[in-house]
Amino acid sequence: MYRDVIRGVYPGRFQPIHWGHIEVIKWALEKVEELIIVIGSAQESHTIINPFTAGERIVMIKAALKDANIDLDRVYIVPVPDILLNAVWVNYVALYVPKFRYGIARNPLVIRLFKEAGYEVLIPPPYDRAMYSSTRIRRYMLEGNDEWKKLVPPSVVMIIDEIKGLERLREVSGRD
Amino acid sequence: MYRDVIRGVYPGRFQPIHWGHIEVIKWALEKVEELIIVIGSAQESHTIINPFTAGERIVMIKAALKDANIDLDRVYIVPVPDILLNAVWVNYVALYVPKFRYGIARNPLVIRLFKEAGYEVLIPPPYDRAMYSSTRIRRYMLEGNDEWKKLVPPSVVMIIDEIKGLERLREVSGRD
Amino acid sequence: MYRDVIRGVYPGRFQPIHWGHIEVIKWALEKVEELIIVIGSAQESHTIINPFTAGERIVMIKAALKDANIDLDRVYIVPVPDILLNAVWVNYVALYVPKFRYGIARNPLVIRLFKEAGYEVLIPPPYDRAMYSSTRIRRYMLEGNDEWKKLVPPSVVMIIDEIKGLERLREVSGRD
Amino acid sequence: MYRDVIRGVYPGRFQPIHWGHIEVIKWALEKVEELIIVIGSAQESHTIINPFTAGERIVMIKAALKDANIDLDRVYIVPVPDILLNAVWVNYVALYVPKFRYGIARNPLVIRLFKEAGYEVLIPPPYDRAMYSSTRIRRYMLEGNDEWKKLVPPSVVMIIDEIKGLERLREVSGRD
Amino acid sequence: MYRDVIRGVYPGRFQPIHWGHIEVIKWALEKVEELIIVIGSAQESHTIINPFTAGERIVMIKAALKDANIDLDRVYIVPVPDILLNAVWVNYVALYVPKFRYGIARNPLVIRLFKEAGYEVLIPPPYDRAMYSSTRIRRYMLEGNDEWKKLVPPSVVMIIDEIKGLERLREVSGRD
Amino acid sequence: MYRDVIRGVYPGRFQPIHWGHIEVIKWALEKVEELIIVIGSAQESHTIINPFTAGERIVMIKAALKDANIDLDRVYIVPVPDILLNAVWVNYVALYVPKFRYGIARNPLVIRLFKEAGYEVLIPPPYDRAMYSSTRIRRYMLEGNDEWKKLVPPSVVMIIDEIKGLERLREVSGRD
Repeated sequence: MYRDVIRGVYPGRFQPIHWGHIEVIKWALEKVEELIIVIGSAQESHTIINPFTAGERIVMIKAALKDANIDLDRVYIVPVPDILLNAVWVNYVALYVPKFRYGIARNPLVIRLFKEAGYEVLIPPPYDRAMYSSTRIRRYMLEGNDEWKKLVPPSVVMIIDEIKGLERLREVSGRD
Repeated sequence: MYRDVIRGVYPGRFQPIHWGHIEVIKWALEKVEELIIVIGSAQESHTIINPFTAGERIVMIKAALKDANIDLDRVYIVPVPDILLNAVWVNYVALYVPKFRYGIARNPLVIRLFKEAGYEVLIPPPYDRAMYSSTRIRRYMLEGNDEWKKLVPPSVVMIIDEIKGLERLREVSGRD
Repeated sequence: MYRDVIRGVYPGRFQPIHWGHIEVIKWALEKVEELIIVIGSAQESHTIINPFTAGERIVMIKAALKDANIDLDRVYIVPVPDILLNAVWVNYVALYVPKFRYGIARNPLVIRLFKEAGYEVLIPPPYDRAMYSSTRIRRYMLEGNDEWKKLVPPSVVMIIDEIKGLERLREVSGRD
Repeated sequence: MYRDVIRGVYPGRFQPIHWGHIEVIKWALEKVEELIIVIGSAQESHTIINPFTAGERIVMIKAALKDANIDLDRVYIVPVPDILLNAVWVNYVALYVPKFRYGIARNPLVIRLFKEAGYEVLIPPPYDRAMYSSTRIRRYMLEGNDEWKKLVPPSVVMIIDEIKGLERLREVSGRD
Repeated sequence: MYRDVIRGVYPGRFQPIHWGHIEVIKWALEKVEELIIVIGSAQESHTIINPFTAGERIVMIKAALKDANIDLDRVYIVPVPDILLNAVWVNYVALYVPKFRYGIARNPLVIRLFKEAGYEVLIPPPYDRAMYSSTRIRRYMLEGNDEWKKLVPPSVVMIIDEIKGLERLREVSGRD
Repeated sequence: MYRDVIRGVYPGRFQPIHWGHIEVIKWALEKVEELIIVIGSAQESHTIINPFTAGERIVMIKAALKDANIDLDRVYIVPVPDILLNAVWVNYVALYVPKFRYGIARNPLVIRLFKEAGYEVLIPPPYDRAMYSSTRIRRYMLEGNDEWKKLVPPSVVMIIDEIKGLERLREVSGRD
């Protein structure tokens, strides 16, 4: 019931979640019974790199999964603050999440850290990163370019609108 | 969609979750649209007071909610590590969870902290605390008294059994 | 102007400041040109031992000094959070305060730490500690015994009244 | 006496305090009864960006206020270390300072954080920032350009001279 | 040369090291090629429980090993500060020390943590703990009972004498 | 035996140790009776700047000293994590190491911090830094240029080979 379930951990900052993430999540759910989405740098917010709080990211991810018709019952969404100790990071994540077998990552450092900690790694196929990228989305937002709205699920657009996310991003990037 | 949902935050350590907690959760779900269960002292584990990791507690809470036929779609389960700054604690929790209107608590300090931070507080009716108490459950476990199994939902018994929770509790309380 | 001024550091938690502290401050101001009152455990509040925030303690101390006709221009009031490294604590305090020559303390550990860090120590004469003690004051407050009002300067009574300090102390000591 | 006083919080790093800061302080003291000058990044020192300790900055600010004939009795100077949690920062500052009504800032992020935390914000008129800027002052110091002495109150020049501030700045910016 | 050496980690606080520890170290050196003595709670000092600094403990341990004719070339002495995350502690220790195969411990919690982290555990035979115990040694010291000198290697007596350890212990346990 | 030994502290990150470091160590051992090599940023690993763990660095330093026929009995190797408080850093190091008289450094900031903390400083003669530099070594490693092997003692080459250090460096510098 607990130990035998095959789970994978998919870490990211999700600032914000976009269709590229959704593709990875769908792909992962074909490989594992349950997927744990780890919201990294959970303590960060109100910066250009990390504009949204962990709480806002939880809501966006949940809504995005619904937009994509993903079975929420097979997904955990867990915020994890930074520990700033690379060699211990995977063990630290393991403390916050249900027992898992796979790390899910394409970033070479993250892959390495999962492997050094004794986990198997699932490497998802690359999505179109020139297109789908949180960095790019935040740049579009700052530039007032509405193209970003095509890159994220519709509920994410609505939530960012409700919390006045563009205004926030502009202000946190501002100087007096 | 996001800002207008009426949410409440119910913090606890859930070491482990028991029927008393479930009663509070059911009561709260009659008052709010969505309930955020905050797993406090998330960084703690392997002590007599906090034997289970945040990840294990997430799984137990989810399973317990299912045992009790609670609609998981209306519930968030969010682990939050300690900050050790009482005056800031509610704001710190707010960073990790979706926007909420109510704190849900009976503990006078917790009630006060929610109020000082500007939140309304819902005080659930008292459940039978002489009976349902995590402290008591852990004491039963240490004494080898199976009465504890009646105090928690059946899935929690199974999970604690799978992770050899009694053995762990005995060992973390031991001395060489 | 800066380096040649003879200063002393008087650390305490001041939960709350009482006439015994005032006596030490007056005594110290006869020995040094400027006195630095360090509010220790500045990050703590809302506990039985540390009910008041650093900000509230700053205001109480300032008001108490005025009640006692102490020349505020010769006094610094500086909150310093805990560092939890005894061997480094004095150097850590030194980072937060103007350059000083003397530590002012009666507690043997504090005296020792000042000396090990290379500072001279001024040991104030004992005031009546059976009478003047923050612990005793907080106990009186909890018991509803108005005797505590005689032990602190009148402005401190007024401020504690304004911030509903007794109610807070009662609540932080409560259990649900 | 405590709660009804109208106070404003003016945060900065004051590395070092200059005439531009003094203008803001004078302006603020026309709007509020008491002004709280918060020395941010209080734990930092001996870097190019933050050469002076919190204790040195306290002394410089106090001396600068005297140079400018500002009533010290209406001013609090409070060092606050970084917390690295933007979403909680204002509440964290509030723990260290007397109760206040206004944040005083021109930086868009700081304005936003005060507002999100429920405070009103007073935006001071811009002083000549091309001229008065701590960054510029530190650059002049490093270049050996005495122009910086015109940008800060005379006592600040004297204190920096006494603590051999230019030598320190040169050394912390050096490499072996 | 590095990976193939069979190493064991022996954690303790060594406040101070005594003949019981020496016995364990000798026993362990028969089982492993290299022994890593981890000085836990390295950041602590000047308390009744942890009177000596990490640096002092390093010197005492090295001297004690020499007293006991132990081959220092086969031993590492590594101070490790607390992390306050039980579930991650072994991985955290692993970051500070050379690659190792065995944990060496009798304490059930420590044994469990090593095992959960995937290490084998060597359990040394019990030494006479009623006799050899750092707690007992510190109590003797506080009581002025010279019996403690028989419980530690002679160099440890000399070092504690040189650093005026008894005086320190008395002062850190004192109250004003 | 303890207090009268003349010791020096030589801090560095040793990522990795090279012949330039060895020269400094030899030079220092002519000036002091015992040398304490402090491994700074001990908590860091798996980054481009700090690829190796503290444990790995301990082993490399010990092996390098043997390669250079340095008397290990006169040397301590002590990992110290960052404290991020420049003004306290030397006192913090002092907590982790045996009592010492000299700081050993060429970096102007480090020299200054030792002096401000009341220590004398020994400034080693410059070695050929255009040649011997950990930054350069790591760059060579990343570029696949075997020149780095001439810059470090042979045991360090072997250890980096055993732990697949080049692969790690490449991966931690990679992006997905």
